[in-house]
Amino acid sequence: MNLSVIRYILCQVMKIEGAFMLLPCVVSLIYGDHEGLWFIAVAAFLLIAGFLGTIKKPKSFTMYLKEGCVATSLSWIIMSLFGALPFWLSGAIPSLTDALFETVSGFTTTGASILNEIETLPKSILFWRSFTHWLGGMGVLVFLLAIIPMSGGSNINLMRAESPGPSVSKLAPKIKTTAKILYLIYLALTTLEVILLLFGHMSLFDSLTLSFGTAGTGGFGVRNDSFASYSPYVQWVVSIFMILFGFNFNFYYFCLLRQFSKAFSMEEVRNYLIIILAAVAVIFVNIINMYESAFSALTHSLFQVSSIISTTGFASTDFDTWPTICKLTLVFLMIVGACAGSTGGGVKVSRVTVLLKSVRKEFSSYIHPKIVRKISMDGRPVEHDVVRSINVYMVTFLSVLIGSVFLVSLDGYDLTTTFTAVLACLDNIGPGLEMVGPTCNYSIMSFFSKYILIFDMLAGRLELFPMLIIFHPRLYMKK
Amino acid sequence: MNLSVIRYILCQVMKIEGAFMLLPCVVSLIYGDHEGLWFIAVAAFLLIAGFLGTIKKPKSFTMYLKEGCVATSLSWIIMSLFGALPFWLSGAIPSLTDALFETVSGFTTTGASILNEIETLPKSILFWRSFTHWLGGMGVLVFLLAIIPMSGGSNINLMRAESPGPSVSKLAPKIKTTAKILYLIYLALTTLEVILLLFGHMSLFDSLTLSFGTAGTGGFGVRNDSFASYSPYVQWVVSIFMILFGFNFNFYYFCLLRQFSKAFSMEEVRNYLIIILAAVAVIFVNIINMYESAFSALTHSLFQVSSIISTTGFASTDFDTWPTICKLTLVFLMIVGACAGSTGGGVKVSRVTVLLKSVRKEFSSYIHPKIVRKISMDGRPVEHDVVRSINVYMVTFLSVLIGSVFLVSLDGYDLTTTFTAVLACLDNIGPGLEMVGPTCNYSIMSFFSKYILIFDMLAGRLELFPMLIIFHPRLYMKK
Repeated sequence: MNLSVIRYILCQVMKIEGAFMLLPCVVSLIYGDHEGLWFIAVAAFLLIAGFLGTIKKPKSFTMYLKEGCVATSLSWIIMSLFGALPFWLSGAIPSLTDALFETVSGFTTTGASILNEIETLPKSILFWRSFTHWLGGMGVLVFLLAIIPMSGGSNINLMRAESPGPSVSKLAPKIKTTAKILYLIYLALTTLEVILLLFGHMSLFDSLTLSFGTAGTGGFGVRNDSFASYSPYVQWVVSIFMILFGFNFNFYYFCLLRQFSKAFSMEEVRNYLIIILAAVAVIFVNIINMYESAFSALTHSLFQVSSIISTTGFASTDFDTWPTICKLTLVFLMIVGACAGSTGGGVKVSRVTVLLKSVRKEFSSYIHPKIVRKISMDGRPVEHDVVRSINVYMVTFLSVLIGSVFLVSLDGYDLTTTFTAVLACLDNIGPGLEMVGPTCNYSIMSFFSKYILIFDMLAGRLELFPMLIIFHPRLYMKK
Repeated sequence: MNLSVIRYILCQVMKIEGAFMLLPCVVSLIYGDHEGLWFIAVAAFLLIAGFLGTIKKPKSFTMYLKEGCVATSLSWIIMSLFGALPFWLSGAIPSLTDALFETVSGFTTTGASILNEIETLPKSILFWRSFTHWLGGMGVLVFLLAIIPMSGGSNINLMRAESPGPSVSKLAPKIKTTAKILYLIYLALTTLEVILLLFGHMSLFDSLTLSFGTAGTGGFGVRNDSFASYSPYVQWVVSIFMILFGFNFNFYYFCLLRQFSKAFSMEEVRNYLIIILAAVAVIFVNIINMYESAFSALTHSLFQVSSIISTTGFASTDFDTWPTICKLTLVFLMIVGACAGSTGGGVKVSRVTVLLKSVRKEFSSYIHPKIVRKISMDGRPVEHDVVRSINVYMVTFLSVLIGSVFLVSLDGYDLTTTFTAVLACLDNIGPGLEMVGPTCNYSIMSFFSKYILIFDMLAGRLELFPMLIIFHPRLYMKK
C-alpha cells in the first residue's frame, strides 16, 4: 500500500480544515464571544501540522481503489476528531463523545444532535456546527482535488470513494475541472438560497447557517424547534432548495452547457420528482384535517417530504404525531434517499430504479423466456457490473442496518426508536421517530450506541465500502 | 398458453382435496359432531367436479414456466376457496372472508388465525384446520406429481413453482420418484413425531393435529394458549421437530442413501443450525431472569427460536413481553426463515448465505482487484444466474413487503404491529408482535387488510413469482 500518498492527503485535509476553521473566528470577532480562541488554537495546530506533513511530497501519486478508500475513511475520521475539539474545549459540549457525535453528524450531513438547547450557544459554535454540513456535503476530498494538483490519473479513486452514488461520471475530462465545476455549482446554489432567505427578512446569520444546512442536506438548525417558527415563505424556499440539493448535480452541469433536453430527460431526476409528488399527495390527504388550513397542511407535507427524501432532516412540525401511513411514507423516503451525485444520502433513487427494473426484466423472462433484454437507463444499457455492485450494495446496506439495530437495541428502547435511529444515522437524515423523533434528540442514547451511530453515519456518508474496508484483516497482511 | 393442461391440473387438485376432505368426516363420526355433513357435501362436489373435468385428457402435457406458475397459483386459490367452505357452512367461522383467511393461513402453513376461541370448536373442524398445514407443507402439486403419471418432462416447472427455495434439485432422475421420496420422508417424520408425543401422554387427537402443524411448519394449535400449557417434554419434542422440518430435505435423502458425509457437510443446514444456536444464546442470556429457572428460560428460548426460524409460529410463552433485543432477534429470524427445500417459509438460509458471500467477494475485489473468485456453495461454484435470481428475489420480496405494509397501515395500527403482521404473513410464520403478538390474533384487521394478507400468505408460500405473474397484463395479451 502506498502509505506516503495517504499521509500526504491526510495532511492536506488538515490544512484545509484549519483554513476553514478561521471562519468561525471571524464570527467570534463580530459577535464578541470568546470561543474564537479555541478555534484559533485548533486551526493553528492543524495548519502547522498539515504544513509540516506536506513538505515532503510522496514519490508516487499512484492510488488504487484500496488506497482511495483508506485515505477517504481516515480523512473523515481525522476531520471529525479535530472538528470536535472546539465544541469540547469551549465547554459547549462537555462530553468528548457527544462532541464527536455532533461533529460526525455535521460532516456526514446527518444532522442528528445530542443537544437539547441550542439557542443559547455562542454564535461561533453554531456557525461551525452548520458549516461542517456545507463542507461535508460536497466532500472535503472533492475540494482537495479542486485546488491541489496531483499528478497521475488515479485520483479518481479518491472521488469515487467520497462521492455519493453507484458510479462517478466525470463531468469534464480532468478530475480537477470536474471537482471545480461541482464546487462552483454548489456555491452558486447556496448563495442563491442565502439571498432568497434574506428577502424573507431573515438575519444574515440565520440565512447563512440554514443555507449551509440545506446545501449539505444536513439538518442542523439554529432554533430549538428547527423550522416550526419560521414563516411559510421561508419554509417554501427551504423546501424547494432541499429538493434542488437532492438533484443529481449532472443536471445542473447539463443546464450550464445548455443541454436542457439532456438535463430534463434524466430518469433519476424524473423518478425523484415523481416520488416526491406521490409522497406529498399521500401525506397531504392524511393530515389535511390536522392543520388549520389546507395550505398549512400542504406546506408541512412538502417541507417534511423534501426534508426526508433529501436526507436533510429539518422539521417544520412534529411529524411523529402523524397517522401511521404518513410515518411509513417517511420511513420509505428515508430508505430511498436522494439522487446519486447529490449531497444527499440514502440508497439513492438511481439504485432503486435499477433494482426495480431488474425485477421487471425477470417477470418478462417468465412470460417470454426467449427474449433477452438488458436493463437500460437514460436510454443506455446498464452494464452487468453496475447491476451487480448495486445488488451487493443493497445486501451490505441491509447487513449494516440489521447489525447496528441489534447493537443499539441493547439500550432497550422500543423497536421503532431503535430502528429509525439507526436508519436516520445510516442514511444521514437526522431525526427518526418516537424517542428520536423531531422534537427529541440522541442524548438519550448510551455511550456505546453513540459510537455505533457514529460509525453508521460515516459508513452511510461514504457509501459503506470505504468505512468497512478499513476493518478488513487482509488489508493489513503483507503481500 | 396451454389452457387444457391447466384445466386438467386444477381438476386433479380438486379430486385430491375432495379425497382428503373425507378424513375430517371420519373424525366427525368418531366424535359424533354434525360438521361431517358439510365436509361430505363439499368433498362430494369436489370429487364429482374433478372427475368430470379430468375425463378429457389434454392433447399435450407441455408446460413452460409460465403455465407452471399459473397452474400452481390457481390450484392454491381454488384449494383455499373450497377448503374454506366447511368452516363457513358449518358456522364455525361466520364470515366468509375470515374463513378464507383461516384456510389460506392453513394451506400456506402460516398459522395466523382470526379465531379468539378454538377449544370449543368441533373436533372435525379443528382436524381439518390442522390438516391443511400438512397438505400445504409439502405441497399439493408435489403430491399430484407423486401419484399421477404425466408424460412430457416439463412438469418440473410445476414443482419449481411450488417448492420453496432458489432452485429445485431433482433427487431422482424422474420427477415422480422425487415427489414420492419427498412425501415418504415427510410421512415418516410426521409419524415419528406422533409416536413421541403419544409417549408424553398426549391424546391421539392432539398428537396428530399438532404433528400436522409442526410438519407443515404451520402453527395452528388446538389450545387457546398454543403450547404454553403443555409439559416441557412436549415442548422439547416439538422444538426439535420444528428444527428438523426446517432442514433442507436433501439432507434426509442423502441420509437415506447412507451418504452421511454429504449430508452433514451441507452448508445450508450447518448455517441454519449455527443461526439457531446463536439466537438461542442471545435470547437465553436476556430472559434468564424472567423465568423461575434457567431450564425454563432455555426451553422457552429454544422453543421460540425453532418456532420462528422454521416459520411454524407456535408459542410457548408471550415473547412480546421480552426485551427489545430478543424481539429483534425474532424479527431477524422471521426474515431469514428456514432452509430451501424444507416445508418452511422466509427468505431461506441458502439465499442469505449466497448474498453474504457476494458481499465478501466484493470486499476481496477492493483489496485484490486482480483476483477473480466465484462464489461457491457446498464446494461447487454458484452459477451467475442463480446469484442474479436471488438478488431479484430479494428486491421483489422487499417491494411486496413495503407495498403491503403501506396498504395495511391504512388500518392505523402502530408501526410494529403493521410491519410484523405483514412480515409474519409473507414469511408464513403466523404471530407477529404487539397487537398481532402470540396472545392476540388477526381478527382486529379490517376486511381490506385481510385480503392483502391473504395475498401475502399465498405469495410467500409460492415464493412470490407465481402469484405475482398472474397479475402481469402481458400474460393475457395475444402472442
